[in-house]
Parts: sequence; C-alpha cells; structure tokens
Amino acid sequence: MVVGFEKAVSATKSVVTSAKKAPTTLSSDRAINFARGDPTMYESYWRQMGEKCTIVISGHNLMSYFSNAGHFCWFLMPELDSAIRRLHCVVGNAVVDDDRYIVVGNGSTQLFQAVLYALSSSYDPDTEPLSVVAAAPFYSSYPEETEFLRSGLYKWAGDAYSFDKDGAYIEVVTSPNNPDGAIREAVVNRDGGKLIHDLAYYWPQYTPITGKADNDIMLFTFSKATGHAGSRIGWAIVKDIEVATKMVKFMELSSIGVSKESQLRAAKILEVISDDCQNSAPDKEENFFEYGQRLMSDRWEKLREVVKRNGVFSLPKYPQDYCNFIGKYTDPSPAFAWLKSKDGLNCDNLLRELKIVTRGGTNFGVDSNYTRISMLSLDEEFNLLLERLSAIKGTIINGNN
Amino acid sequence: MVVGFEKAVSATKSVVTSAKKAPTTLSSDRAINFARGDPTMYESYWRQMGEKCTIVISGHNLMSYFSNAGHFCWFLMPELDSAIRRLHCVVGNAVVDDDRYIVVGNGSTQLFQAVLYALSSSYDPDTEPLSVVAAAPFYSSYPEETEFLRSGLYKWAGDAYSFDKDGAYIEVVTSPNNPDGAIREAVVNRDGGKLIHDLAYYWPQYTPITGKADNDIMLFTFSKATGHAGSRIGWAIVKDIEVATKMVKFMELSSIGVSKESQLRAAKILEVISDDCQNSAPDKEENFFEYGQRLMSDRWEKLREVVKRNGVFSLPKYPQDYCNFIGKYTDPSPAFAWLKSKDGLNCDNLLRELKIVTRGGTNFGVDSNYTRISMLSLDEEFNLLLERLSAIKGTIINGNN
Repeated sequence: MVVGFEKAVSATKSVVTSAKKAPTTLSSDRAINFARGDPTMYESYWRQMGEKCTIVISGHNLMSYFSNAGHFCWFLMPELDSAIRRLHCVVGNAVVDDDRYIVVGNGSTQLFQAVLYALSSSYDPDTEPLSVVAAAPFYSSYPEETEFLRSGLYKWAGDAYSFDKDGAYIEVVTSPNNPDGAIREAVVNRDGGKLIHDLAYYWPQYTPITGKADNDIMLFTFSKATGHAGSRIGWAIVKDIEVATKMVKFMELSSIGVSKESQLRAAKILEVISDDCQNSAPDKEENFFEYGQRLMSDRWEKLREVVKRNGVFSLPKYPQDYCNFIGKYTDPSPAFAWLKSKDGLNCDNLLRELKIVTRGGTNFGVDSNYTRISMLSLDEEFNLLLERLSAIKGTIINGNN
Repeated sequence: MVVGFEKAVSATKSVVTSAKKAPTTLSSDRAINFARGDPTMYESYWRQMGEKCTIVISGHNLMSYFSNAGHFCWFLMPELDSAIRRLHCVVGNAVVDDDRYIVVGNGSTQLFQAVLYALSSSYDPDTEPLSVVAAAPFYSSYPEETEFLRSGLYKWAGDAYSFDKDGAYIEVVTSPNNPDGAIREAVVNRDGGKLIHDLAYYWPQYTPITGKADNDIMLFTFSKATGHAGSRIGWAIVKDIEVATKMVKFMELSSIGVSKESQLRAAKILEVISDDCQNSAPDKEENFFEYGQRLMSDRWEKLREVVKRNGVFSLPKYPQDYCNFIGKYTDPSPAFAWLKSKDGLNCDNLLRELKIVTRGGTNFGVDSNYTRISMLSLDEEFNLLLERLSAIKGTIINGNN
C-alpha cells in the first residue's frame, strides 16, 4: 500500500503542508530520512528574502492551455524562457544562444522521459528498443523511469562501462554525478550514440563552474538549482529543433504542458537571483549561490571531520577548481555524500541502526558497501546526522559482534 | 517542426501570455480555431470575481517535494483533497465518501495514463498488452495517449462496439461524452473488464446532474470544471486503494508529483465556488455553475438556430432532465458541438472554407461527415462562428459545384 518514494520518507514525519510548514521536532530517538534529496535546506534563505519573490495570481489569470501559441513549445511562458536564458548567462554554466531551444517540463524527471521518446520514436518499430545506459553509480531512478511502462521504443541496458552492444544507444551523462558528485563525460563513445546530459547539479553551490556546458541535450531542474522542488519545474536546452519538437509532443501527450502558476513563480525567482548576482553595489547582500556555496562547504567540512574521526567510512575526494562564477578556487560540495564503508559492510543496515535512513549502493548499480546521504536537509536534521555518525563506532562493535 | 496541438491553434494567434492576456483582435478574414476545447469562455466570470480567488505565494513557500508525508498520495495537498471532496458534495455529482481515494495529477491526461498503468502493471509480462477500448465516437487523444510509448502493458484496441477479444480489457466510459455530449454507460460488459469513467464534463453547466456518480475510477479535471486549463490539475476518485497506490507510483515515476502552486490555487478556487453555491443570502450573486449553465444554454440556443436556418448540418438532440443541483429541468449544453453534414460531405473541409478550424470525425473513430466544435471559446470568437456558419449555404454552392 505504501510506494517507494513514500516509504522512504514516512519515517521522518516532517510533514510540510501547503504554504505552511509544520514545526519539525526531532527527538533523538526518531529515524531521520536522508534517502531523498528534498532540498529543504534552502528554505531559510528564501524566508529571509521576504516579499522579493512573492507572486500574486488572481482568479482569472493563466487560464488558457496556451502560453505562446505559434512558438514550437506552445506551453512555455515567454518570461520563463527568458529568465532561464538570463540565469545561465549570469552563472556561465550553459550555452543558451538563440539557436538553442528551451523545453519546460514537470521537473527534469518528465523531461528525461520526453528525451527518451524524442530520440527513439523515429526508429523502425520492428527493430529492438533503443538501449539506455549510464555509468555506474548512476541515478537510482533512471532504470525504473526507463522501464516502468515496458516501452517498445527504449529499454534500460544498465551500466555504460559494460555496455557492448552494436548499434544505436542513448547514454545519460550526469555531471556532477548523482550519487557520487564526480564530474563526468560520456564513456561509451561509439557511433550511433545519443547523449543526454543531466546537469541538475551544475550550479556554483555544488561544484566550481569551469565553463559553459555546450551539449546537445542538457537537463536542469528548479528543485536542485534553487530548492523549489514542490513547483515541479525542469527545463531542457536542446540544439536540434526536431528533438525539441518531439519532446514538446511528448509533453503534450503526457500532460498537455506544465503548470503556469509554477512557471510564473520560477520565472520570478530566477530573475531575482540574476538581479542579485548582477548587483554590484558595495553593500550588497550575499547572493543565492554564494549563500548556497558557503553553506554546502561548511556542511562538507563538518561531515568530513566526523567521517575522518570515526574511521568507519570514507568519502570521495574532489579536486579543487577555479569557479568562474565565484571568482576563486572552490572545493566541490555535492548535494549528496557518497559514503563507503571501509570494512565492506552493508552501509544502509549500519546506518539504520543509528536511525539514519539512506539509499544503498545497489539502487545505483553498485555494491551495498556504498550509500547515498542527502546533504540538503534542514539544519537541525543535518546536525543530528553528524551527531549520530559520530556515535557509530560503538554501534558497529555492538551490532556486528 | 510544428506539432499537432500547436498546429491546431497557430492559425488563431490569440496569444495569451502569462498573467496578462494579449488583446484578441479578430478580423473577419482570419481563421478561428475551434478544434481545441480551450475554456477561455470562463475568463470573464473569474475577472468579475475580483480578488476573491487571488493567491499570494512567497519565495519560501511550497518548497518540499512532499505535501503530506505518510499519506498514500504524498504529493496531494490536504487542502486540495478537502476542497475537491467538498465541491462534489455541494454539486452532488460524485460519491466522495471517506473510503474513496483522491489522486491528483497534471491534468486528467496524466491520470488517464496513470490508470492504464495501475490496471495493467500487475499482469504477467509474458501475456499480451491489455486492450484499451472506448465506444466511438471517442475522445481523439485516447488512442495516441495509449499508443505513443508502445507500452508492453496496454494497447489501444479501438471502438468498444466492435471489440470481441476474450480476456481482460479496459473500457473508457466518457460521460457526458467528448465529442458528442451523450450520456454513456459501458458497452462491452464482459468478465475481466475494468472501467475508467472520464467525467470531465459531468458538471451542471454541461448537463443535468441526475445523481452522484459512483464508479470504481472517476476522472475529473480543473480545466473543464472551472476553466483553469493552464493550471494542469486533474483528480481521480478511486475505490480500490491498490489501484490508487499504483497511480501514485506512476505519478512519482512520471513527474514526482504535481505543482503545489497549482494545487493551492485549485483548492482556493474550488472552495470559493463551494462557498458561493452554499450561500443562501437572498441577494446573492449567480454562482459559477449557474453562470456557466446560463451561458452555455444561451450559446446552444443560438447555435441550434443558425444550424436549423442554414439546413446544411444537424446537431444531436439531448433529452431534458431534472438537474438536482440547479433544482429544475435543464437542457444538456455540452462543451462541444458535434456537427454532422446532412449531405455526407467532409465537414472539416467545408468549414475551413469559412475559416473555421474544427476537429473532424476521423479523429474520433467515425466518418469525416462529422466534426467537433468547441463551445468554450471567447464571446467574440463564438459570435464569429455563428456569423460564418450563417453564411455557409453560399460557400457550399460555390465550393462544390
């Protein structure tokens, strides 16, 4: 009766309803869920922004199906298109020249499926479904999102490192990677390959911005860029109009477009971020990405300290790099910590004894001695994580004797 | 480069952008599009409601993925669940007892596909895909929504009247029917059948409400109920928790839930309608459904008059019935006019000569001497429709000699 996503969080009971947030009271004996990347961390930033990002919608606004009749992506609001392009220009993380096409989706989850459809629907129906691969460890939802409808157009073919079939294929390149934060490039590199670049985490708070991404199909999401997961807004930047048009066709058949309320709000918030980033006043406040980068760096420093002290786990090491946006060398601080147990033990089981719910390595195509921990939780949850991780040594001795 | 939905409207150029509506200037020689059921007719009602339905959303609101962690439909906002149940109680058009489960979707389009998944995903993967049928004329998008991913779980099997395969199947029962406005029941009625009731138009402005629908799976949509198509909100009322839970799973894999901004707004608007309907003050204003019913009746009367006068087409006749909600006998006034040419001519071609774009019968599984015309356009567009239809006699003589 309880589905995956739900099951993963029901332990937390930190119910956030509608516009109001229920008080989160964390007792020391309650399980805390770090399995999902719910970006609640950013709430405090947006709260302190006051009414700068407030939107007001009257009953008669935004009623039509259409946002831009005549445009290839007829449901995309022009102000969102423009806010997306502006933000990428300001941050310098993706090429958004006029010959690139923006498609909006109900989160990048729906757009990922729109791309699969766009890249496979013109293939001969009598041929085998197109293989979809990603290098392990890969985002845990790719296999299920590819497989759940048992499409005859495409099918999940597993780890890109071991993919050796001839002919056409799709490779998903997630960079920085979910779950392990690595900067990635395609690994198959054969004729007939089409690439989807999932760049959900290519923002200054997670990784140094070293250049403008310029891939054929790039996916971004409002959830991870700014923390507004509840809005379900994602966007694709696409070079080929035929691919973009087929994606629009998918969106039309799948949900007749995307909530205008969410689009309006995303446009507003992205514009405010761009304004703040471009503000050159001497007394200006920290902008969103500076805030995020500082917070994430701080969390990573604390986590590394605890992990080092307890000696049970290891964390990946990332090379420092020059961030064009921040204007100095920064350490990557990924949205997830990819924890490995040094003794080859099952990480999830180990952490569950400490009432820390995580998502184990097998979900990502690797062994259970790895697990993924969200770094985007509320402060008090993150602090409890540190506290519990500090106590793990005793648990291992008691739990595995 | 231009997709179906888009192509169908690009002729109209009545671009509605974001919160602002572009001025619609209709010149007498421009094509007008009645192929889509964009419910712009209702804008004037909501405009005159002023700020009663206005919502205000701050930057830090609605950020989490979760609306109700612990609830089987974890992305459904409790206030929307409650507003939906209340409205159905007030209108009396569907049973919403506590043992019925509400699933919200990105329009009923996405929910239709969620139901297909829910009803077919437990079948043996080695068996044939489950047949999906609907009695012709059926909603033109059912076939494509069922087929476009070439799912191994389900497949479109055409007109329910000619369906004669043994074993399990799904029948979609649309009532009032799109395109022809008929009140319908299942036609296959064999063992192993599962029914989806698409009740998008079972509201007082379109048909007399003769009782509370009490089917296993009922689909409704904000677009047709109140005219808010841009919000992409639909809901299902489901008896079986296992079906509802699988639908939630589909929603999770397809788009990780539904825009909270849209849900908040839908909740607000549905509550205002319920308040108005329950207002018993002697000087109370006309409520939304009374307004809609009056407007639609008026349009139908005018359309019947024009059609009768020109003698080229016929329209279906609908029996008057007692509407429990309005409290008197009312004539059905469907959201679409299902026009038939008396001489067996291709209706679409005929109307295109008058610069009236419609959706021909072949899209709905019947002959091209039928076509569907949206009755939900703006006043000035509807008036132009009447004007052009009045002029058809001369066109036929000129165009078919």
